Amino acid sequence: MPETGPAIILVDPQLGENVGMVARAMLNCGLGDLRLVRPRDGWPNTWAEKAASGAGEVLAKVRLFDSTAEAMADLQRLFAATARTRDLAKPILTPRRAAAEIHAAQGRAEAVGVMFGPERSGLISDDVALADGVIQVPLNPAFTSLNLAQAVLLVGYEWFQARSQTPPSTLPPGTSRRATKAELAGFFARLEAALDEGGFLLPVEKRPTMVRNLRTFLTRAEPTEQEVRTLHGVLSTLAGKKRAPRS
Amino acid sequence: MPETGPAIILVDPQLGENVGMVARAMLNCGLGDLRLVRPRDGWPNTWAEKAASGAGEVLAKVRLFDSTAEAMADLQRLFAATARTRDLAKPILTPRRAAAEIHAAQGRAEAVGVMFGPERSGLISDDVALADGVIQVPLNPAFTSLNLAQAVLLVGYEWFQARSQTPPSTLPPGTSRRATKAELAGFFARLEAALDEGGFLLPVEKRPTMVRNLRTFLTRAEPTEQEVRTLHGVLSTLAGKKRAPRS
Repeated sequence: MPETGPAIILVDPQLGENVGMVARAMLNCGLGDLRLVRPRDGWPNTWAEKAASGAGEVLAKVRLFDSTAEAMADLQRLFAATARTRDLAKPILTPRRAAAEIHAAQGRAEAVGVMFGPERSGLISDDVALADGVIQVPLNPAFTSLNLAQAVLLVGYEWFQARSQTPPSTLPPGTSRRATKAELAGFFARLEAALDEGGFLLPVEKRPTMVRNLRTFLTRAEPTEQEVRTLHGVLSTLAGKKRAPRS
Repeated sequence: MPETGPAIILVDPQLGENVGMVARAMLNCGLGDLRLVRPRDGWPNTWAEKAASGAGEVLAKVRLFDSTAEAMADLQRLFAATARTRDLAKPILTPRRAAAEIHAAQGRAEAVGVMFGPERSGLISDDVALADGVIQVPLNPAFTSLNLAQAVLLVGYEWFQARSQTPPSTLPPGTSRRATKAELAGFFARLEAALDEGGFLLPVEKRPTMVRNLRTFLTRAEPTEQEVRTLHGVLSTLAGKKRAPRS
């Protein structure tokens, strides 16, 4: 495989067998970076190994994380695969369109990932809010439920089909690199603390939605590392605190 | 489903569970015509019913045949899905290309089918010889083995994608309209005034660049009208002034 595909992040996967089948689907499509957040049935897992038959090389490199934030920390572009429509103002992409965007991001040497939720319930909105876009598979509207490995297969399949195309780059050359998710998380934390202090995120029952909407908006702008530093400076200035370093 | 998809013919399927998973994959893609040739584990089959959960309507219409010749008798165009290359001088198609041909045939009111072999061994050459074309899925050459339901899913998925154009990337319905340039300009003006007051946009010769970079960043997010109102609220909170109205 000349090009490395996106990382696949499984959040709270339930059955070990499904993780093994995801590993197979990944290897089918030339993907090798599998990350597990809190696998319910533990890790390593015998059922996963059985189901992965032939794709043990993917399981051997699995990385475990305690939170989605840690699993995505090094990524610069992240998609959330979820069947349910959300109220979040976030682009909705088909797997085909997402594949083109993933290749474009990889053409800019960005680290890319696709995140999948647990089998029964799918991703929670707080995780979807951190993604740059939502992947939805256009299927029979009367029966859209896909199992986890099939969802990964369709995303990986489209990535593999689009592999040979060289898509255009959207950011001009010379622009600072895209911020990592960890850098974004650092800014969100400071901003939300300042807004809590100022009494903006009230009433308390609306706070989660308000936080998600703010994160969605800022994520959609796809900030560069330099822009995140500027935002820190803006925040420090407005909140009247010691200024964060800026370039 | 306005258009009926191709018939799916499973030749000598082994595990009932796999037949059930094929039924699910078919219903995902709006396919309803499942034909079984000599299912090893008998029919009807409890494992198939369990695995098909939610797709019982496909199983209910299954037809059984003693030979591939009978299963394909009414069809006018037939494709054989097989991973192995053959010596047969027969067109080899990707699922995407096959989907286009299936739609073209259906446009001529032809009855179309796709045939899949048993899990372990795949179709025998005598059956492949009866097909108008061979479907091969372009996958990682080092690991092409797909399970039966996944192979059906990829063929059905491509048929379904070719069936209707889907908008490439959109905001979810119900999201507030995009902000006008005037609304954006109103926010820029307030933000920049606050930053001037806080001494952020210094030294003065760098101010134009800094302002452009901030505006570029915020514009790239393509804010909705509601998000601009939220930004006003954030600014008021951080700057410790009277809060702008927010929804």
